[in-house]
Amino acid sequence: MSDSPTDPTEFDPTALLADLPGPDAAALAAVQAREGQLTKPAGSLGRLENLSEWLATWQGRAAPRLDRVQALVFAGNHGVAARGVSAFPPEVTVQMVANFQAGGAAVNQLCRTFGVDLDVIPLDLDRPTADFSQGPAMTEGDFAAAVAAGAAAVPDGIDLLCLGEMGIANTTAAAAVCLGLYGGSGADWAGPGTGLDDAHVRAKAQVIEQAVAANAVAPTDGLGVLRALGGRELAAMAGALIQARRRQVPVLLDGFVCGAAAACLQVARADALGHCQAAHRSAEPGHERLLAKLGMEPLLQMNMRLGEASGAVLAVGLVRGALACHSEMATFGDAGVSGKNA
Amino acid sequence: MSDSPTDPTEFDPTALLADLPGPDAAALAAVQAREGQLTKPAGSLGRLENLSEWLATWQGRAAPRLDRVQALVFAGNHGVAARGVSAFPPEVTVQMVANFQAGGAAVNQLCRTFGVDLDVIPLDLDRPTADFSQGPAMTEGDFAAAVAAGAAAVPDGIDLLCLGEMGIANTTAAAAVCLGLYGGSGADWAGPGTGLDDAHVRAKAQVIEQAVAANAVAPTDGLGVLRALGGRELAAMAGALIQARRRQVPVLLDGFVCGAAAACLQVARADALGHCQAAHRSAEPGHERLLAKLGMEPLLQMNMRLGEASGAVLAVGLVRGALACHSEMATFGDAGVSGKNA
Repeated sequence: MSDSPTDPTEFDPTALLADLPGPDAAALAAVQAREGQLTKPAGSLGRLENLSEWLATWQGRAAPRLDRVQALVFAGNHGVAARGVSAFPPEVTVQMVANFQAGGAAVNQLCRTFGVDLDVIPLDLDRPTADFSQGPAMTEGDFAAAVAAGAAAVPDGIDLLCLGEMGIANTTAAAAVCLGLYGGSGADWAGPGTGLDDAHVRAKAQVIEQAVAANAVAPTDGLGVLRALGGRELAAMAGALIQARRRQVPVLLDGFVCGAAAACLQVARADALGHCQAAHRSAEPGHERLLAKLGMEPLLQMNMRLGEASGAVLAVGLVRGALACHSEMATFGDAGVSGKNA
Repeated sequence: MSDSPTDPTEFDPTALLADLPGPDAAALAAVQAREGQLTKPAGSLGRLENLSEWLATWQGRAAPRLDRVQALVFAGNHGVAARGVSAFPPEVTVQMVANFQAGGAAVNQLCRTFGVDLDVIPLDLDRPTADFSQGPAMTEGDFAAAVAAGAAAVPDGIDLLCLGEMGIANTTAAAAVCLGLYGGSGADWAGPGTGLDDAHVRAKAQVIEQAVAANAVAPTDGLGVLRALGGRELAAMAGALIQARRRQVPVLLDGFVCGAAAACLQVARADALGHCQAAHRSAEPGHERLLAKLGMEPLLQMNMRLGEASGAVLAVGLVRGALACHSEMATFGDAGVSGKNA
């Protein structure tokens, strides 16, 4: 496997999806063997034990580590914002990118709290995608460039990736992607986003129904749906997800928009998200429905609905706790603690 | 209010419960006012915002802090262990105390991860409580001493307290306390604990039904139920909860056993647990039922069932994340970010 081909003409998501590395069964077995010797009743650390197993399986290491944890926040602008689908004006995207770069946003504080490096990647913010209620959001070239930019943003040598986004109107893109992949009605997937009232949520539901009607993409064509109904930051997250898998980097998925991008890959290949955990169930109502489609149980349910990788970075604390227990606890033998009664 | 009366003859939980300090409405209002100016849609940090409000309200500080976070793990032994209600032998309690002191247990690793100081307080481990299926677990004197030991363990000057326990057979005590307070059947409250099979869970349910029958305590007498059906570590947690409230220290409750001790206070005074959050919903089945009685929504649901304050310390990460966002984020004005459309 060649390293980091991020020229759009070289990073072909269709070809790469057909050739993803699988889980490391030996690393998993090693972690499970150690887990059984630690001074606690078997299974009593619950999902913390599952997290250690997941890290080992997808890092390909019998002794997983979290020396370098990276958050990536991709930002994009959306032609569909002109349809009045967001409570905030589109200039907020570029303003929030500046806020991330100055260290003032929520994700900056969470990254500092949990020892996470943050990179923010604005994607052609002065050139919004086309209004997908009239036709495809992106040309083939724009889509390929965004996917490649996502892949290129994944650094070498990281141990865990937190994936998130910012983009005024992008819960509309996420809802359109979900409708395109899974069907149902617009009302099943459209929600208040940053704070729409009910009348505007109903209008948003109509816009995404128009979008699916205006773009004749098969629901089984995950990458096609992503190009037609997504946006640059969604395409970039898909590229980063593929690149992380190729580099044996487990991924914490943030909320609804990130989950919609990931769903396009799972539709294209059922096991494409084995290296991912859903970090947080968003308050955006479509996310619960989406998580059911993904078959994922979120680590956290804190009623957040912010995006910008905030849920993913918050879950890093849980993963650090899991690894600390797994790596540093005493064994029954070392500690002289009696085991379970026969 | 006199400081730290922990001589058992001076720390009278009944009198102190009648004189608990209330919430600080001014601190709450200050936090809410700042929250509305931060660069995020209103309410989009969900429960993280609630956690900042809770810290301020119960610390009595408009600018809450987490400079010193303390975990207390109380350990006790139980006469009822002789009835075969645990999967592990009773000598494990003292062995695990040594493991805590040597730094080898799960809670040690979690405390290191989340910047939490740990104290372990063994309570007369060589002198188990009486078998409460035959009569009261503790004499008045033993109960008063355990409550006072709990209060004495709360250090001055801490900002947040994580409360937990260790004691072979103490999910039986917790289940008996719940049955004594809330009624129902033994099967409603008895669970597998550290790993009982179904037949032993049924026998455990019978033991707690015998215990409630053998101790004629009114369900409205919270402290009476705690003395008759609890254990020293449960009584100590109740003492620590009262002392924390008096010192304006918010408390993270761990799992089922900690919750049962807290419930005795709530039965005695409905608002006694205002300064507490349920940190984690245990896999022990009675805990979900108990949380409903307490009216608490747990912060985490990680399928853990270990005790030893592990769930409470894991939740410290969430509280640190909440405070970092609240304290350090930029405001809309500072960052030049546009607000919501009119």
